[in-house]
Amino acid sequence: MAKQPKQLDELFHEGLKDIYFAEKKILTALPKLAKAAQSEELASAFEKHCTETEEHVARLEQVFELIKQEPHGKTCPAIMGLVEEGQEIAEEYKDSPALDAGLLAAAQAVEHYEIARYGTLRTWAQELGLKDAVGLLSKTLEEESKTDKLLNKLAEKSVNRQAQLA
Amino acid sequence: MAKQPKQLDELFHEGLKDIYFAEKKILTALPKLAKAAQSEELASAFEKHCTETEEHVARLEQVFELIKQEPHGKTCPAIMGLVEEGQEIAEEYKDSPALDAGLLAAAQAVEHYEIARYGTLRTWAQELGLKDAVGLLSKTLEEESKTDKLLNKLAEKSVNRQAQLA
Repeated sequence: MAKQPKQLDELFHEGLKDIYFAEKKILTALPKLAKAAQSEELASAFEKHCTETEEHVARLEQVFELIKQEPHGKTCPAIMGLVEEGQEIAEEYKDSPALDAGLLAAAQAVEHYEIARYGTLRTWAQELGLKDAVGLLSKTLEEESKTDKLLNKLAEKSVNRQAQLA
Repeated sequence: MAKQPKQLDELFHEGLKDIYFAEKKILTALPKLAKAAQSEELASAFEKHCTETEEHVARLEQVFELIKQEPHGKTCPAIMGLVEEGQEIAEEYKDSPALDAGLLAAAQAVEHYEIARYGTLRTWAQELGLKDAVGLLSKTLEEESKTDKLLNKLAEKSVNRQAQLA
């Protein structure tokens, strides 16, 4: 039998594995970012997002169940690079007034990665007629967008504060 | 003399090197994506964005000049991962009706990476009082956002088309 070309359901499953890996990676990175952050406000934003991320992982597990697949991650070099960069900034800018600005930049790049991924997965879930998955993915997408907006506000504040210190 | 802690201007310079590397990488990836795409519309969107990307590189070179630095890139593992992923999809989904959906997903992840980076750089340029840089970065940011919206539209179309073929 000739090999069938891959279809959208496979692409959806692959994408799910990718973001599942990413969320788990982020879950381990956020407490480190919270510890590194200078301002209380940023530390608590990272902590809050860590709690949300646990919820995102649980939702993804529900989506895996909906497509009758075991929840498994697939190594995603992009998120590895993004998370690594946050850790580098935490080390290189330790005790610098620009530290929080750097951590915020790294966190926003991660948020945008997730926004792109969840947006794509939602479009595919719609097309595949996976209504419950659409609901779960939309909920997380909304939270990621909110987090990005919050980080934006903190970025402006942080930059202003560090300029005053300079 | 004790080592001075790093400041926002250094963070800005680092960020500039990161996105300069990314744009150059994207410049080599886009013609391959255009060649791989099934629909004429997607191929021409990639080609158009390739021309825009040349402009983005030129604008970044102007920003380097504004801060009196040579234009140099710095390897960015995140963009390497994102670009690699697009190439993997082009190979794995060759001849599949889901190919364009996969290429679009990869391209949107790249766009969001750039949107995050340019947004951050613009905030920092504002704070550093680099008015001309703010203008240049805003222009590119706007184009990246427009491209993301166009890809969104194509993603919905592509998914509908492939569902009809399935």
